Amino acid sequence: MAAAKGKITLIPLGGLGEIGKNMMVVKYEDNILVIDAGLMFPEDDMPGIDFVIPDITYLLENKEMVRGIVLTHGHEDHIGALPYVLKQLNVPVYGTRLTLGLLQGKLREAGILGQCKLVAVKPRDSVTIGPFKVEFIRVSHSIPDAVAIAVRTPLGVIVHTGDFKFDQTPVDGEVTDFHKFAELGDQGVLVLLADSTNAERPGYTMSERTVGLTFDETFQNAKNRIIVATFASNVHRLQQVINAAHKYGRKVAVSGRSMVNVVNIATELGYLTYPEDIMIDLDDINDYPANEVVILTTGSQGEPMSALTRMANADHRQVEILPGDTVIISATPIPGNERMVSRVINSLFKQGAEVIYEKFSGIHVSGHPSQEELKLMLNLVRPKFFVPVHGEYRHLIKHAQLAKEMGMDEANIFVAENGQVLEFTRKSGRVAGRTTAGKVLVDGLGVGDVGNIVLRDRKQLAQDGILIVVVTMNKETGAIVAGPDIVSRGFVYVREAEKLMEEAKEKVKIAIEKTQVRGNADWASIKAGIRDSIGKYLYEKTRRRPMILPIIMEV
Amino acid sequence: MAAAKGKITLIPLGGLGEIGKNMMVVKYEDNILVIDAGLMFPEDDMPGIDFVIPDITYLLENKEMVRGIVLTHGHEDHIGALPYVLKQLNVPVYGTRLTLGLLQGKLREAGILGQCKLVAVKPRDSVTIGPFKVEFIRVSHSIPDAVAIAVRTPLGVIVHTGDFKFDQTPVDGEVTDFHKFAELGDQGVLVLLADSTNAERPGYTMSERTVGLTFDETFQNAKNRIIVATFASNVHRLQQVINAAHKYGRKVAVSGRSMVNVVNIATELGYLTYPEDIMIDLDDINDYPANEVVILTTGSQGEPMSALTRMANADHRQVEILPGDTVIISATPIPGNERMVSRVINSLFKQGAEVIYEKFSGIHVSGHPSQEELKLMLNLVRPKFFVPVHGEYRHLIKHAQLAKEMGMDEANIFVAENGQVLEFTRKSGRVAGRTTAGKVLVDGLGVGDVGNIVLRDRKQLAQDGILIVVVTMNKETGAIVAGPDIVSRGFVYVREAEKLMEEAKEKVKIAIEKTQVRGNADWASIKAGIRDSIGKYLYEKTRRRPMILPIIMEV
Repeated sequence: MAAAKGKITLIPLGGLGEIGKNMMVVKYEDNILVIDAGLMFPEDDMPGIDFVIPDITYLLENKEMVRGIVLTHGHEDHIGALPYVLKQLNVPVYGTRLTLGLLQGKLREAGILGQCKLVAVKPRDSVTIGPFKVEFIRVSHSIPDAVAIAVRTPLGVIVHTGDFKFDQTPVDGEVTDFHKFAELGDQGVLVLLADSTNAERPGYTMSERTVGLTFDETFQNAKNRIIVATFASNVHRLQQVINAAHKYGRKVAVSGRSMVNVVNIATELGYLTYPEDIMIDLDDINDYPANEVVILTTGSQGEPMSALTRMANADHRQVEILPGDTVIISATPIPGNERMVSRVINSLFKQGAEVIYEKFSGIHVSGHPSQEELKLMLNLVRPKFFVPVHGEYRHLIKHAQLAKEMGMDEANIFVAENGQVLEFTRKSGRVAGRTTAGKVLVDGLGVGDVGNIVLRDRKQLAQDGILIVVVTMNKETGAIVAGPDIVSRGFVYVREAEKLMEEAKEKVKIAIEKTQVRGNADWASIKAGIRDSIGKYLYEKTRRRPMILPIIMEV
Repeated sequence: MAAAKGKITLIPLGGLGEIGKNMMVVKYEDNILVIDAGLMFPEDDMPGIDFVIPDITYLLENKEMVRGIVLTHGHEDHIGALPYVLKQLNVPVYGTRLTLGLLQGKLREAGILGQCKLVAVKPRDSVTIGPFKVEFIRVSHSIPDAVAIAVRTPLGVIVHTGDFKFDQTPVDGEVTDFHKFAELGDQGVLVLLADSTNAERPGYTMSERTVGLTFDETFQNAKNRIIVATFASNVHRLQQVINAAHKYGRKVAVSGRSMVNVVNIATELGYLTYPEDIMIDLDDINDYPANEVVILTTGSQGEPMSALTRMANADHRQVEILPGDTVIISATPIPGNERMVSRVINSLFKQGAEVIYEKFSGIHVSGHPSQEELKLMLNLVRPKFFVPVHGEYRHLIKHAQLAKEMGMDEANIFVAENGQVLEFTRKSGRVAGRTTAGKVLVDGLGVGDVGNIVLRDRKQLAQDGILIVVVTMNKETGAIVAGPDIVSRGFVYVREAEKLMEEAKEKVKIAIEKTQVRGNADWASIKAGIRDSIGKYLYEKTRRRPMILPIIMEV
């Protein structure tokens, strides 16, 4: 795409029409700045997939233009794609200390930490990246050290909120930088891109501090051990757990790989503070009376292999749930995880624990802004153009409606899709076209090699299994030399279906003969004949449609 | 199990520790009465399964004792297993008219309607079934004609609430029979079994009528067509849609097989009333102005093949969503369906519809009692013993806690599991043992033939697919005659993995040789050798673990 003179181009490569894999391209002439590079967890129609990252074909095609990547915060949906992106696109990455701290671990695992250029910034810092002057603006979110981004371009200022909320009483006392947003609004902002995740929620999102009050009350009443499961990256939440533990004379042990990881990084960087002797090793919890122990653990989403799930299933090496223990699940199930979380809650109750979870108010708050906060942001920033980001289509639409209700001209609001090219001048904005964008599936070591055909096969295999028909044939005469043999998996329990299988073998023989008699002795026709005949037969007998895979060996 | 003299035995065969497949056995001496026989929709770890029914081994082993089945209402989770149960156990079935009306359709489809004995009852009816005098008590629920059951036994009265709520202003004016519950409580009730579905919700469940008010407001403001998706069986909800349509001069068309079915049965039996000319054919909707049409449709759970989903995907033969249409999803997603519903909402917005869904209050109410209603039921019935039913373990526990908080002796409350045998005398209750209970999976025509092995295989196939290794060998010499051939499905996209497959074939040859050299020339050892070698190789190269299936053809 040729560089548009006198134009700012915005291209969302992820995060629009979906929750996750956030990535926004800001382009001016031959210069590209990228905001965030996140991953998304697979949807339920992507069996076996580990996670999904944005398709960065557009960036690779314009490699020489990319000046850098700026990060808003350290959540997976904002930094998780970087180990893949940086392998193909070695550009400087700018982020706050905690964000980079979390990123470093990932790059180390990917074996590319040494070759990456990471630049630490602070809120209110301003850095020059190509023709862009980029400012980092403190915001509250469910992870410390989150920032919004203001990009000063020759044509005007672009403000990207990242994920944010207006927490009037944040745990670390660092409130969202109202003053900077107000100042930008005063000077004039060309485009605002703002977080739409909670655009359906009226009112204000509660302060993180309210969860601390609930912890305090719960800790005061708990008789035995307290086990708190939450998102590892919610360092303020962890801090509040540790504070409550300290207040009520309890020691804290940490369980789960990512929890241990975040506690270490956050402690090292000074985002998590506590008296040194409050931390005990998970192996030593039984050396303390039950009413002097708190366990901080992963597993708030009921993930099958997580520490909390293993505790609930009496399958954790170090932690056994005892009757009278209090388990706090300080999180809301992410859509799709409800059943897993529910199973864990049921199992914990069966072990005799008192379980406190989302049905009880005050045990979790969101990190995203509700409608009144979204309006406040719009009023502070007063942008000429507005692009709702970070949300499914319903959230973007709702966010756009809010802006419209506030009096913004509908023509200046863009509900966009990933891959759409938005062009802005000082005066006008328009959808100028479309570029490559999409989902790249990561499965094990494979990045992008699992496509629609493989996924379709996996789904079919999951539904009714597979039935393999093998027959060895003479390539000259077409005579059957061995078989047909039939093997199935995930279809029927074979010992109970011997008759079915025997009859199926007969059907195969007949199908082969029929095809040969018709003069179509080539292997492809024979396979098609087998597939048809067996498919019909099995559906009639079982009302199931296993995948049918004929294999002909020739001798 | 020998008949216990002077004892009432209660055995839950379904519905405890789960939402669905409700079934309760009441036994006195050599007489068994069954309350409900429902199905459950499969959990996410049951790929390919259509639904789940209770294991009725206990009933089949005591066939001659079973005197009848009484039904509380016509929802799937209370009647859905009957086509299977009645095939094995031909006993009279008692239910109200609408319940039997819905059941008849199912029995007809199963081809057993003619041989079933169905007995219609009315609220306040009393029928004698063996030694039991069974009374039917009107309750409000999200389907008309729902009843609770009082079973008078020689040792005392057992009250089973079925699903219920205390709706003070039901749409049909037929309030829950407070007086009968009060009368039973006055006379003395031995055991209460009560619905725990909403035991976590404080307060009262809103009246069904409040949804009517929301419809009224929405219909008043809608400019174009209105499409309402809800549970087909919620006849009162349908009635309120039709009432609002009538008030605002709109015609009503019905879409979706189960919606058409319920509207027909409910109309025929008089549970749904409307002026005849209000109903129009779905094929004729375009003959009317957009602001004179309402479409009642299935699909409120985002089911992939449902009418609403097809409309949302612009894939419905008769209904095309037009910009300005109002779509009301009058339902809450059942846990596990959130993502599907969300997808449909997004697609409807993309088609330009205004979508009104659960995030907006007043568009749906539950059919189950909240905590204050549960307490009212306990206070009215004043049972000696209490068994919470219908709920996951967390709901049962919460319900039990409520009873305890109300002053009930903890020793008289039984949080039981499916298959537990509860024995009651006039004075005492205890868990006396355990009998067979469990999940029978229905998949196509197969009832119970899909077990753990098949499910495990399906899950593995869904994760990383399958790789089949076929080799034809001489059974005398063990020499390879043809192959090895490798075929995979759901593993990698083969065209991009040719090198991997070629190398894998070499590994197979080496594995066969090695096994033969070691002197283990039998097919089982050779297969194990192939599986090990290829498994390791593929994991190393891809970090995936497809199912590996070696097949040896012998010539």
